[in-house]
Amino acid sequence: MTTEVSPITDLAQRYHYVRATSEKLCEPLEVEDYVVQSMADTSPTKWHLAHVSWFFETLVLKPHLPGYQPIDDRYAFLFNSYYNTLGKQFSRPDRGLITRPTVAEVHDYRRHVDESMEALFERGSSAGIELPEVIIDIGLHHEQQHQELIVTDLKHLLAQNPLKPVYRGDRGDRGDRGDRGGGWIGVAEGVYEIGSHYGDGFVYDNETPRHKSYVYDFELADRLVTNGEFKAFMADGGYERPEFWLSSGWATVQERAWNAPLYWEERDGEWSYFTLSGFRPVDDDEPVCHVSLYEADAYASWAGARLPTEAEWEVVAAQQPIEGNFVESGAFHPMPLTIDGRRSTVDVSPSQFFGDVWEWTSSAYTSYPGYEQPSGALGEYNAKFMSGQNVLRGGSCATPQSHIRASYRNFFYAPDRWQFSGIRLAR
Amino acid sequence: MTTEVSPITDLAQRYHYVRATSEKLCEPLEVEDYVVQSMADTSPTKWHLAHVSWFFETLVLKPHLPGYQPIDDRYAFLFNSYYNTLGKQFSRPDRGLITRPTVAEVHDYRRHVDESMEALFERGSSAGIELPEVIIDIGLHHEQQHQELIVTDLKHLLAQNPLKPVYRGDRGDRGDRGDRGGGWIGVAEGVYEIGSHYGDGFVYDNETPRHKSYVYDFELADRLVTNGEFKAFMADGGYERPEFWLSSGWATVQERAWNAPLYWEERDGEWSYFTLSGFRPVDDDEPVCHVSLYEADAYASWAGARLPTEAEWEVVAAQQPIEGNFVESGAFHPMPLTIDGRRSTVDVSPSQFFGDVWEWTSSAYTSYPGYEQPSGALGEYNAKFMSGQNVLRGGSCATPQSHIRASYRNFFYAPDRWQFSGIRLAR
Amino acid sequence: MTTEVSPITDLAQRYHYVRATSEKLCEPLEVEDYVVQSMADTSPTKWHLAHVSWFFETLVLKPHLPGYQPIDDRYAFLFNSYYNTLGKQFSRPDRGLITRPTVAEVHDYRRHVDESMEALFERGSSAGIELPEVIIDIGLHHEQQHQELIVTDLKHLLAQNPLKPVYRGDRGDRGDRGDRGGGWIGVAEGVYEIGSHYGDGFVYDNETPRHKSYVYDFELADRLVTNGEFKAFMADGGYERPEFWLSSGWATVQERAWNAPLYWEERDGEWSYFTLSGFRPVDDDEPVCHVSLYEADAYASWAGARLPTEAEWEVVAAQQPIEGNFVESGAFHPMPLTIDGRRSTVDVSPSQFFGDVWEWTSSAYTSYPGYEQPSGALGEYNAKFMSGQNVLRGGSCATPQSHIRASYRNFFYAPDRWQFSGIRLAR
Amino acid sequence: MTTEVSPITDLAQRYHYVRATSEKLCEPLEVEDYVVQSMADTSPTKWHLAHVSWFFETLVLKPHLPGYQPIDDRYAFLFNSYYNTLGKQFSRPDRGLITRPTVAEVHDYRRHVDESMEALFERGSSAGIELPEVIIDIGLHHEQQHQELIVTDLKHLLAQNPLKPVYRGDRGDRGDRGDRGGGWIGVAEGVYEIGSHYGDGFVYDNETPRHKSYVYDFELADRLVTNGEFKAFMADGGYERPEFWLSSGWATVQERAWNAPLYWEERDGEWSYFTLSGFRPVDDDEPVCHVSLYEADAYASWAGARLPTEAEWEVVAAQQPIEGNFVESGAFHPMPLTIDGRRSTVDVSPSQFFGDVWEWTSSAYTSYPGYEQPSGALGEYNAKFMSGQNVLRGGSCATPQSHIRASYRNFFYAPDRWQFSGIRLAR
Repeated sequence: MTTEVSPITDLAQRYHYVRATSEKLCEPLEVEDYVVQSMADTSPTKWHLAHVSWFFETLVLKPHLPGYQPIDDRYAFLFNSYYNTLGKQFSRPDRGLITRPTVAEVHDYRRHVDESMEALFERGSSAGIELPEVIIDIGLHHEQQHQELIVTDLKHLLAQNPLKPVYRGDRGDRGDRGDRGGGWIGVAEGVYEIGSHYGDGFVYDNETPRHKSYVYDFELADRLVTNGEFKAFMADGGYERPEFWLSSGWATVQERAWNAPLYWEERDGEWSYFTLSGFRPVDDDEPVCHVSLYEADAYASWAGARLPTEAEWEVVAAQQPIEGNFVESGAFHPMPLTIDGRRSTVDVSPSQFFGDVWEWTSSAYTSYPGYEQPSGALGEYNAKFMSGQNVLRGGSCATPQSHIRASYRNFFYAPDRWQFSGIRLAR
Repeated sequence: MTTEVSPITDLAQRYHYVRATSEKLCEPLEVEDYVVQSMADTSPTKWHLAHVSWFFETLVLKPHLPGYQPIDDRYAFLFNSYYNTLGKQFSRPDRGLITRPTVAEVHDYRRHVDESMEALFERGSSAGIELPEVIIDIGLHHEQQHQELIVTDLKHLLAQNPLKPVYRGDRGDRGDRGDRGGGWIGVAEGVYEIGSHYGDGFVYDNETPRHKSYVYDFELADRLVTNGEFKAFMADGGYERPEFWLSSGWATVQERAWNAPLYWEERDGEWSYFTLSGFRPVDDDEPVCHVSLYEADAYASWAGARLPTEAEWEVVAAQQPIEGNFVESGAFHPMPLTIDGRRSTVDVSPSQFFGDVWEWTSSAYTSYPGYEQPSGALGEYNAKFMSGQNVLRGGSCATPQSHIRASYRNFFYAPDRWQFSGIRLAR
Repeated sequence: MTTEVSPITDLAQRYHYVRATSEKLCEPLEVEDYVVQSMADTSPTKWHLAHVSWFFETLVLKPHLPGYQPIDDRYAFLFNSYYNTLGKQFSRPDRGLITRPTVAEVHDYRRHVDESMEALFERGSSAGIELPEVIIDIGLHHEQQHQELIVTDLKHLLAQNPLKPVYRGDRGDRGDRGDRGGGWIGVAEGVYEIGSHYGDGFVYDNETPRHKSYVYDFELADRLVTNGEFKAFMADGGYERPEFWLSSGWATVQERAWNAPLYWEERDGEWSYFTLSGFRPVDDDEPVCHVSLYEADAYASWAGARLPTEAEWEVVAAQQPIEGNFVESGAFHPMPLTIDGRRSTVDVSPSQFFGDVWEWTSSAYTSYPGYEQPSGALGEYNAKFMSGQNVLRGGSCATPQSHIRASYRNFFYAPDRWQFSGIRLAR
Repeated sequence: MTTEVSPITDLAQRYHYVRATSEKLCEPLEVEDYVVQSMADTSPTKWHLAHVSWFFETLVLKPHLPGYQPIDDRYAFLFNSYYNTLGKQFSRPDRGLITRPTVAEVHDYRRHVDESMEALFERGSSAGIELPEVIIDIGLHHEQQHQELIVTDLKHLLAQNPLKPVYRGDRGDRGDRGDRGGGWIGVAEGVYEIGSHYGDGFVYDNETPRHKSYVYDFELADRLVTNGEFKAFMADGGYERPEFWLSSGWATVQERAWNAPLYWEERDGEWSYFTLSGFRPVDDDEPVCHVSLYEADAYASWAGARLPTEAEWEVVAAQQPIEGNFVESGAFHPMPLTIDGRRSTVDVSPSQFFGDVWEWTSSAYTSYPGYEQPSGALGEYNAKFMSGQNVLRGGSCATPQSHIRASYRNFFYAPDRWQFSGIRLAR
């Protein structure tokens, strides 16, 4: 006998899974760790947990569950991130000042929302009332985005502490590593299609529509740049030689006195870095990580190459399986290529397109031709950020595997480094 | 039969009392409230609790208790406030980024220090070994100072939260209030002595030496300026008329858009304020509080008076009993004069010299003639701050009663408002 | 009899013309006006005059004129703008602190360079020695760019002065204006070529190579957005409604309290603006000017349209004659469409592609596919600025007519407003 | 036969002398030098020249010369410094943006005011109409203060220029210097009078009233601290050892990376400094100059001494002749003690109380007991600055000799260094 899963049940199951995953990520935390905001770009874990619940409350429960009562009306203000359509918001850089509601109260809030969602799903399956499935689906992907932010924001927070707290002990040996030079994947000139249409599985509005793009002959590196390679750039004066750098990148290097990727520290001539599993020596075989667009571009310039455009990246990545080192691996850190299985250094090329690190592209984050901004609050989800940022592709070791796809577009500002962001070369 | 208390036992008892008081102040707190730093001038409660323990560890236990083992060597760096003599310090404005040690671990730290201090007292009483009583005494007064800061810093933190959390419920009715105009206390011209000599009970170095000062005829108001009076200043355009203000005060008013004391908010034409017992309408009979030196000076100027010098204040205050509304009252807020007892509005004048609010003086905080800076770390306790600040006198509703005296000198910068600071006029 | 102009003579004549034009732009100035820098983005006129001379001195005379002696060796440091390849540079935001060399000495410097260039041209024509024509040509276009900056930077400077100094009296009547609704120019989907090859007349490296781009069906407005239209946006709450704005644009509006284009002031409900011909009421028929990318994008959003990409713009503009209101008109301000001749409102559509105002595009300023960065100092001319800026097209009323072309790419940051920048819609 | 000078004629003569002196100070300047403001604390020379004229126009001519017509009504706004009583003011840090009125127009303004003042004096002498002598006198002393600022602000401006322009050639040899150890002047404990009464010659309101002060036994150094002595402090790690510094001083040293007095530069282990006569090696025998209060205090602490209070300073200085190195010497720089005449190193002690450098005192700038703030605009002259600054005494090499007296109180903020400020020790 086969068990057939109805769509609603499937949605409910995914809801449970995603919600539980957020909480599982918090298991290693002390109450104190949930509260603090280490810089304006990050948010407290507590805020993330509440905000994703606010999203379901505001966009699903209030409009679609008759009789829904919020646990506290003031949360609508406290936990709205940036949706002007949905009312005023508490000042973003001050999210860390809000010690109440407590962590326990935020968990109460989550439970309240979960129980109400349960009631909603129940209405869907028993009463056959149509559910707002699209928006629930967006809410789940939204929560997955915040799961990644919980990891990256926590890393930034813990790294400020001279005690260097460990989020989670290391997973031990990471496999045999072959010797591998790295090759190039060639693509021929022509008109290619990238992006997605609504309906090709879940996609965000900023991935649409699928459209043609003229691409010239290019080659893409078949693996990521490693720490060892990046050290060679550093040893060659990479951070002291303006000729490799974008003008605003060079100004940033001077102003912030950068001389290595974020979280790296030199002691007695040896580089170590802070990881979520502790402070330890840099592993030369891992993909380099926590670099800004500026550093990625300067490295490429030094290496006689360049960064790919997002179209180039997607043309190649669309041919790759969505496998790699995601948040599910529990490593919370990029991993070196190894001989065993998919991460083999010999058999499998190209590699590392998904997971490990977000890959900087040279493409500015703008709308695709024919893009139509959704109406209402969801129109604020992506469109209003289409200015001054660059696209990153492929997900990282902090991304849930089910969250990523070839057409997925992430975006950050050129100097940002606290995400797990790295480099793949093109030429 | 009489029980005679030996000096060592007395010191030990005071140690227990003061240490327990710090912890009692924290009883209403959630773990989350201990962690956050709401501005660079304040510190997290957790940090205060640890720092005062570090003081005993560093200046008493390490040099005086043979075999003392710190619970964590790194605390020496984390919890040193500003003593260059005692090593480097963690960045002050980043104290709120340190989620570990946790609150529980800080309590462990306190216990560890307390047990070691116990051992030290034991050596003193049983083995007759001489104790460093002076420095222990300073440590206790130091902890009392931080008790006041715990209260003021918490108030600042909780006030940032739109939920307006209550630290502690209100104590209810605060007595009948007489109608009282306010009078003046006159003092005749001449040479007066102010300050203290070491040995006149506990005093800080900055109160020494007792010395002569030439004082001209003056009058001091016999009570503090009230909220009602300050509202009259506001209603008369006090915050819009530059003629009342010091030049840097006027610039500050413009820059920070001040239009009322800190924590005041206008809603529908009525003023309310955030207090540690909740958000409530301004009580006109209470002393005005949370004003900067600039506002105090502008008010005085508007009222055709001036602020007293610290010599003038002390000449009068030295004649008054040390009674008033201190932290022990549990009000955590200044109180109106009432008919009953000492706070009567009819019988007892002068009043309110001690407790309620720190009183701004026009005197810059500098050394007294003949002052000698202590050697070593204690030389950093007060002397290095003798620049750019003004003296405040008399203690506040957040000050422990046993901590204050007529010669006590507190000091803050002219724009500072988060202390319980108020106004007494002179002319 | 025909006079044949040899290439060298032609280059020398263009040299004389361009150099004289710079000086002619300065004729209305007082010495005081040459010296001051009104913000970090602008430079003093004196600095512009010297810097363009430094360019010829450094890249032409020193390497190519045997025996060339600089008038002052220290100018190499003072007047290098940003060429790291050519040595250190004086701090950019401090250019206005340099009162010496004086204006007269800068003119001496120019004369010294001109006489030396004369000697170089002489060597070319009489001795037949090959000249570095390419770099001289770049030097001339470079000086034309700074001519535009002289105009825009002076406007910014004079606008700071409450006396509202007039650079140059108004040119009087600007013709009859027809009533004109504005239409759209349609373009069909397909692969189009944009950009230029070296050798197609003078082009900058950032315009190369000519390349294919896939363009979807679109329409481009046949004229610029006018002040009258922009006022309608303002009247409809344009600056108060976040739904029209990019997120960083909305933050900028709040931070800088923008409520109109730069240089606009409201008095008694009427808008006037500062122009180089004086302070006067806003002319509703002129193209709106001095708007940021943020304002251009918000306007387009309000109008139910969008900004064009640079490919879209160029596909249409390449079909238009290079005519319009350039710096040679002496208006120093955008002009309304008029009935007479080219600027007719009836007969001629499309219009205003060149001159009047730089037109914001939605395209980020990045390299074209196949772009090769020049080696040496010229590699710093454009490539290192390819980050975080948007492309503007078509030149303005401050651009020399011979400087502009359809493939020309200008670039500024999204919040920049001091250039003559305006809006053409697409959809 | 004796010539009797009537008071009015005397005032007119002093007016001519003071006004001419301002212009004489500007003789070495290029037009460009008049315009620029090198930091918010300084003003352009052009502004100083206009502002002092505005003072006469506003406080003397408008109220006292019937029919007086301003040359430009808008100057009332442009050249008001900080008198709220007299209307709004142009933004202080933007004074350098005002290229018009030109230098020539400012001279026209001065002439216009001078001619009108001439008419006023004429009315006084011929028509016998009473003149506002007190306010004219204040205007003259006010202009002398700005003469000093012209010198110090110009020095700051020219020092920013890597060309190191010379204001005025050096005056050559500065005499034989004896070897001199430096002694102490002792004063006995008691009540002393300091300050001045109105009517004791010209005095500012902040010097009044003359009043009693209780002073303890002290000694004052009989000469200023020299560059050679200050170098010994530096060589002993003065700028690296926090134990000598006030807390805010030490923070300032770190923030601004101070390692020597302002204008000092080290090249190959030798210190030189920028002076108004050029860049040259530091002269060890000169008084150290351009030090902040922080550096003065740290030096004193290192030397086992302290800074004097203003009362101590005045008690001694009141006994000294008002002789020294003033602006009239044309040195524009402090001078070493020499054997010849008054500046002898052997015969004459105490020395250097007046001229050379302003001497930092430990006294905060506040009102004297019994001080009464003048009414109207003159009430803003001094009183509103009585917060956060320290008193300096004795005048400098940029002060006109007739401007200084023993009771004169100058005041600057602790970190200020661009005045000619130095150190005299007390103990």
